[in-house]
Amino acid sequence: MSARERRYVITLGCPDRTGIVARISTFLAEQGGWIVEAAYHTDTDTNWFFTRQEVRADSLPFDVAELRHRFASVARELGVQSDWRVTDTGQKRRVVILVSKAGHCLYDILGRVASGELDVDVRAVIGNHADLAGITRAHGIPFHHVPFPVAGKDPEGKQAAFAQIRQLVDSQRPDAVVLARFMQVLPHELCAAWSGKALNIHHSFLPSFMGARPYHQAYARGVKLVGATCHYVTADLDAGPIIEQEVGRVDHTDSVADMVRKGTDIEKVVLARGLRWHVEDRVLVHGNRTVVFH
Amino acid sequence: MSARERRYVITLGCPDRTGIVARISTFLAEQGGWIVEAAYHTDTDTNWFFTRQEVRADSLPFDVAELRHRFASVARELGVQSDWRVTDTGQKRRVVILVSKAGHCLYDILGRVASGELDVDVRAVIGNHADLAGITRAHGIPFHHVPFPVAGKDPEGKQAAFAQIRQLVDSQRPDAVVLARFMQVLPHELCAAWSGKALNIHHSFLPSFMGARPYHQAYARGVKLVGATCHYVTADLDAGPIIEQEVGRVDHTDSVADMVRKGTDIEKVVLARGLRWHVEDRVLVHGNRTVVFH
Amino acid sequence: MSARERRYVITLGCPDRTGIVARISTFLAEQGGWIVEAAYHTDTDTNWFFTRQEVRADSLPFDVAELRHRFASVARELGVQSDWRVTDTGQKRRVVILVSKAGHCLYDILGRVASGELDVDVRAVIGNHADLAGITRAHGIPFHHVPFPVAGKDPEGKQAAFAQIRQLVDSQRPDAVVLARFMQVLPHELCAAWSGKALNIHHSFLPSFMGARPYHQAYARGVKLVGATCHYVTADLDAGPIIEQEVGRVDHTDSVADMVRKGTDIEKVVLARGLRWHVEDRVLVHGNRTVVFH
Amino acid sequence: MSARERRYVITLGCPDRTGIVARISTFLAEQGGWIVEAAYHTDTDTNWFFTRQEVRADSLPFDVAELRHRFASVARELGVQSDWRVTDTGQKRRVVILVSKAGHCLYDILGRVASGELDVDVRAVIGNHADLAGITRAHGIPFHHVPFPVAGKDPEGKQAAFAQIRQLVDSQRPDAVVLARFMQVLPHELCAAWSGKALNIHHSFLPSFMGARPYHQAYARGVKLVGATCHYVTADLDAGPIIEQEVGRVDHTDSVADMVRKGTDIEKVVLARGLRWHVEDRVLVHGNRTVVFH
Repeated sequence: MSARERRYVITLGCPDRTGIVARISTFLAEQGGWIVEAAYHTDTDTNWFFTRQEVRADSLPFDVAELRHRFASVARELGVQSDWRVTDTGQKRRVVILVSKAGHCLYDILGRVASGELDVDVRAVIGNHADLAGITRAHGIPFHHVPFPVAGKDPEGKQAAFAQIRQLVDSQRPDAVVLARFMQVLPHELCAAWSGKALNIHHSFLPSFMGARPYHQAYARGVKLVGATCHYVTADLDAGPIIEQEVGRVDHTDSVADMVRKGTDIEKVVLARGLRWHVEDRVLVHGNRTVVFH
Repeated sequence: MSARERRYVITLGCPDRTGIVARISTFLAEQGGWIVEAAYHTDTDTNWFFTRQEVRADSLPFDVAELRHRFASVARELGVQSDWRVTDTGQKRRVVILVSKAGHCLYDILGRVASGELDVDVRAVIGNHADLAGITRAHGIPFHHVPFPVAGKDPEGKQAAFAQIRQLVDSQRPDAVVLARFMQVLPHELCAAWSGKALNIHHSFLPSFMGARPYHQAYARGVKLVGATCHYVTADLDAGPIIEQEVGRVDHTDSVADMVRKGTDIEKVVLARGLRWHVEDRVLVHGNRTVVFH
Repeated sequence: MSARERRYVITLGCPDRTGIVARISTFLAEQGGWIVEAAYHTDTDTNWFFTRQEVRADSLPFDVAELRHRFASVARELGVQSDWRVTDTGQKRRVVILVSKAGHCLYDILGRVASGELDVDVRAVIGNHADLAGITRAHGIPFHHVPFPVAGKDPEGKQAAFAQIRQLVDSQRPDAVVLARFMQVLPHELCAAWSGKALNIHHSFLPSFMGARPYHQAYARGVKLVGATCHYVTADLDAGPIIEQEVGRVDHTDSVADMVRKGTDIEKVVLARGLRWHVEDRVLVHGNRTVVFH
Repeated sequence: MSARERRYVITLGCPDRTGIVARISTFLAEQGGWIVEAAYHTDTDTNWFFTRQEVRADSLPFDVAELRHRFASVARELGVQSDWRVTDTGQKRRVVILVSKAGHCLYDILGRVASGELDVDVRAVIGNHADLAGITRAHGIPFHHVPFPVAGKDPEGKQAAFAQIRQLVDSQRPDAVVLARFMQVLPHELCAAWSGKALNIHHSFLPSFMGARPYHQAYARGVKLVGATCHYVTADLDAGPIIEQEVGRVDHTDSVADMVRKGTDIEKVVLARGLRWHVEDRVLVHGNRTVVFH
């Protein structure tokens, strides 16, 4: 696939009122901006307006910093609560991935990056087990092993391990921290520090089967579909804003192990979509819900 | 579609051991029985064996009563706990439908019956509202209006209404009692009386969003798929054995009303499948899980 | 579901250039128009721009005729080739349905209308067989039986029958002519006369299995999914612009009759979606492709 | 996932008649065979019977060679045309993969093997381009680069290249030859030589869009779903028996490049399922259709 043309992406959420679209589109037209993709949404419950616009970089006579500067005035007019970003697709997004032993999501992301499908810069993979060091390094990516104490023992050791992870992650200034079947619950301070950029893949169709061993829970309940959910990590375990979900069919012939296996295909696809939309600035969070302009 | 050939259907659940398939298939072969469809399953957790077999009626030199009589000996050999049925597809299944105001599931079932797709005998429709009397009677089916007291008031009136429903239902000796978006919770004694033949359609992907207003719950949680579940009614609200589930995609543009509308298509299909499988003796209940030989 | 608020719907297709969104949104903002839903799309291959906007009727100080009049000037500025419409959701869309013997799609549409889910005015049902007269009239809708000569015989009789159908249809000035499993091929002059408003449901995933007996073709090819396609009728049989498609799973246990049965559920849903989007002015045709703003 | 217990797998296709199930199950019961999974199917059009049975290896007092020897007599009784196999899950299946430049299917298979999900022995990867040598060798698997002459030029060079591929493949005695987006059309003699073990992934929902550039064809036709098909390779291009198909939704916002990208996820899953079912002896070919006991 040839390189995509460079674009600037504007996202905005603000209180709804008449004339917002006119204000923004007139601003862009005045600069000569060629809008390639534009999406709008109004949440009528909360009276909140959302938009995402892609403008061809070469249609504007200045760079992204200047666009950001000029758009700030527009955003200010639209209300002090307005929440906006202006980004440049020419700047590759930085990603750090946290893993444990299960490798299917990591293999999948690395394959997408290597084949050019997912255009991000994976800065590091960090594992509380070392199992996935080999494949990570085969892709030319640093792997850090941060061992964790046995569950329930040595809370200070655990705290130290998370401190080390935090240092490793933050040193990369990532745009996304991906919990790719990372089996440790993030402490609240990390949820807060990485708010809006830590993505988790949970192996159930949330809110069903939160917490541990969701496929075992699904089997016990006798459901006919299993699912996976990609969501932003918050202090509430498995309760953050949902970015994407998908399900697949199971039946009485499927053991828990079969569900686990079938689920991996769902997890991989859901996480890959969630990550793509996040790094393309397609996800706008509003309370505990998301607007996804895909 | 031409009439299907007449078949006898044998279903059996029993403790697993070597030789069950040989025992049953030899029994059938000895009578000249031509097996048209056969399915087997072993639940390895509970070591339980399940089978369903369809035999061409004209391949056997006797009727269903005699087959039932002879098969009883085979079943006895397979263990006192064995649970079995022998039925005749030549005997049309009797169905009673309970409704409230929402008509989409009723319209759908009546359309399927009228067009010959679902070959059952709808004996009666009973509503706690009268809204659906017209369409029911247009299909030549009796409609009974059994008004209920306002929610929370007059528990004796409610009890009397349920007693009347029970009498109306039981007088039809139905093989299936379908709660087609019937908005009253069945009392425990009715759950018990209709155990294994009362089917409910719940408008969520259970176990998510049990109880009232599941689409409102789904909207609030920001899920990306909505679903429906057909399950056997038990005393545990929305927790009975699941027969079928399906989901459909929603996104941030969908209001609760949109979810309700999109959900109707899922509910109709899920209920129709569950009802079909039930009347074709394809569903074997085992604890709180089902084996569905579809 | 409570009545939806009244809205005016603007759709437009025109050559793309910078400033179109600004022009339209400024026009609406100047009139005080409150945009409730807005969608944009640019086809980069043909450099064509599309938009659909819903404006609250009560936010404008004039009626739909005046809005149409004023918008005409805007559209003219955007190019002589621009193709636009302004409609009013307060004016119920008029639908005529053509059927043969198979009733599943007709039952489904009538059920949706009766339950308030699909807010259209079904003016008439016309059948080349009389089988579906009863259910149509039970819904209070006129049914016209227009018998056709035996296939291949009496071309003049066939021509006369189509002339009669044309007269019956056109007398209703419909916004949509729905071929709900109507088993006669429309003559070219009717395809032309009803261009852009005749919708067909074809019982395959087009372009696979065009023409007669698609389920038989699908069975013979051994496909693992069967599908249905809702498309605009053109003189090219089963080759018109596709509005919607869906598939469902089949396997080796499914006979042609099973595929036919499973297919009905897909056909009903696909036709219902296509019809809804058509009457809500969500479908913009561009060459042989459609832009569907759903 | 712990290692699965060892099983012997019997598959059989033969003319249908009364008593086949009894004959096979009695044979197994007499040897003490514990059937863990059993499936049966009768094709009523051709009156052909199919079965697949998994027996616990440790329930039989002899090895797979002896089971094969004894079962041969049973199969002989069931007709000279009967087509059967007896295999041992303890013997890992040997796989050779052919690739060109696109790596998504190869990455996916290698990831599944490395994570233990797909328990096969990938003996070699052969590419007509060298792009995928690195990832292959990182997994410890030999990669062979067999360059092809420019399309349409040098037919003898092409013939020599295929001869080399054949030698490389056959020297591995593979149970499966996987064309993982291999962009050269196999010559008839290779189709014949590898009949029933060469699997191709075609990037469309066959029979739609056979041949070259299916996503371009799909885009031009304006379909609303794109798909992929895993099928056995035959001398008829893209017309062999279908093992598995899947589709995914696209809309007017998707360019050909988007369809290609969305399609990769479908291709990966469809090929992985097809390969798994093939190596688990779950696919029985009958004419141009398949019976898949999954």
